[in-house]
Amino acid sequence: MPKKNKKVNAAILIIGNEILSGRTQDKNIAFLSNWLNLNCGITISEVRIIPDVEKIIISNIKNLSKKFDYVFTTGGIGPTHDDITAQSIAKAFKVKYGYHKEAFKILENYYGKEKFNDGRKKMAKMPLIAKLIYNPSSAAPGFITKNVLSLPGVPSILNSMIENCKKHLIKGLKVHSKTINLYTVESNISKKLELIQKKYKKSVDIGSYPFFRLGKVGVSVVSRSTSKTELKKVYQDLVKFVKIKRIKILKI
Amino acid sequence: MPKKNKKVNAAILIIGNEILSGRTQDKNIAFLSNWLNLNCGITISEVRIIPDVEKIIISNIKNLSKKFDYVFTTGGIGPTHDDITAQSIAKAFKVKYGYHKEAFKILENYYGKEKFNDGRKKMAKMPLIAKLIYNPSSAAPGFITKNVLSLPGVPSILNSMIENCKKHLIKGLKVHSKTINLYTVESNISKKLELIQKKYKKSVDIGSYPFFRLGKVGVSVVSRSTSKTELKKVYQDLVKFVKIKRIKILKI
Repeated sequence: MPKKNKKVNAAILIIGNEILSGRTQDKNIAFLSNWLNLNCGITISEVRIIPDVEKIIISNIKNLSKKFDYVFTTGGIGPTHDDITAQSIAKAFKVKYGYHKEAFKILENYYGKEKFNDGRKKMAKMPLIAKLIYNPSSAAPGFITKNVLSLPGVPSILNSMIENCKKHLIKGLKVHSKTINLYTVESNISKKLELIQKKYKKSVDIGSYPFFRLGKVGVSVVSRSTSKTELKKVYQDLVKFVKIKRIKILKI
Repeated sequence: MPKKNKKVNAAILIIGNEILSGRTQDKNIAFLSNWLNLNCGITISEVRIIPDVEKIIISNIKNLSKKFDYVFTTGGIGPTHDDITAQSIAKAFKVKYGYHKEAFKILENYYGKEKFNDGRKKMAKMPLIAKLIYNPSSAAPGFITKNVLSLPGVPSILNSMIENCKKHLIKGLKVHSKTINLYTVESNISKKLELIQKKYKKSVDIGSYPFFRLGKVGVSVVSRSTSKTELKKVYQDLVKFVKIKRIKILKI
């Protein structure tokens, strides 16, 4: 378990042929990463997208759950044959898999006994040791197995469940960011940026991203840090530098 | 080297804090996956998104280049301090890193000797054994080191360069897909889908994805295969089943 008020990191494991094949544009990575940082101070340090293949899911769960404080899986927890996330996680951790009593009750209540068919019952099958993540939009719960939190792939349902993850997570240090948008090109500022990055190498990460807007090229310089004071120092150094160089700052 | 007319697989390695942090929505995965399948018969089998950290890039390059026929990296080949893809790949393969003569000439011609500053020169630094991927939109070339193809992160520039990868790639078998959209819920068809999947388990992958449209819920059943004949058989089995069940097919 990670300690409070330390850096807490996590990986996202997206399980789904539809994302890999390019049929579906992923929307969960950016949402999860932003939400986890803002609400829990958890930093996403790696993302993997893998196919619906049991042995691949198992090896990735084993690997990522050791490397990171938390793993968030998305996809593969529905009622069809290609939904094999729950059974794969049970195998990865060598824990019992079957009908989870509480999940079974939730689904039986939701559908009513008559409409609770085998497909729907499958959504109550998961590692028996799992804690549930309640689902306010379509009942079928997500679940937590050790440090792995399993969520559905449909973005609207995932978004509706994310608040219910909060109480299960140890909070870490939030990463703040400050952006300065400059009307210049990267090669014009790269030397100075490197010097500033070296000066603050222990506390701030500085990234530089070209953009195109209204026919002009520019660069967004993004600084990220758990310390607002350090961020402010970097920002002041940047402003001082661009004033000397007469580079225009773009206010957005 | 993969053999012609076999399945050829690849991984995408996205190098960039801006995607991991959720600041930037990735657009390259879906584009690359669709384009490579359609134009080269290359299937993306894994995607990883990692931060701009040298030792992490090196270990992922080593791992993925062994596991897959090709690796496509995006990001980290610009002029600033956080662009460390080229040097990391050189280290991963233990090959010499420095000014690539041809890349240097291209950039010197493009900018002119006077404006060819150190930042811009950095974009000519790469593994010396690399072959170039020409860049029609902003000159700075991508490069191929063994089975690793390195492209920029900016989607519009990546898109403009992708045609120039083609001649370097062994072509594999294209994966075709056929979708049937049904006005039903997954649990209503999950048993039959599983039977059809078992019948064609060697030739076709069947996936099932819920959708919401005009206030109604539905399911897209997507079959994917390198054989059009097998796909047609699956489609016919599906149509027969939904007629018996009186499930409405949605034409889009």
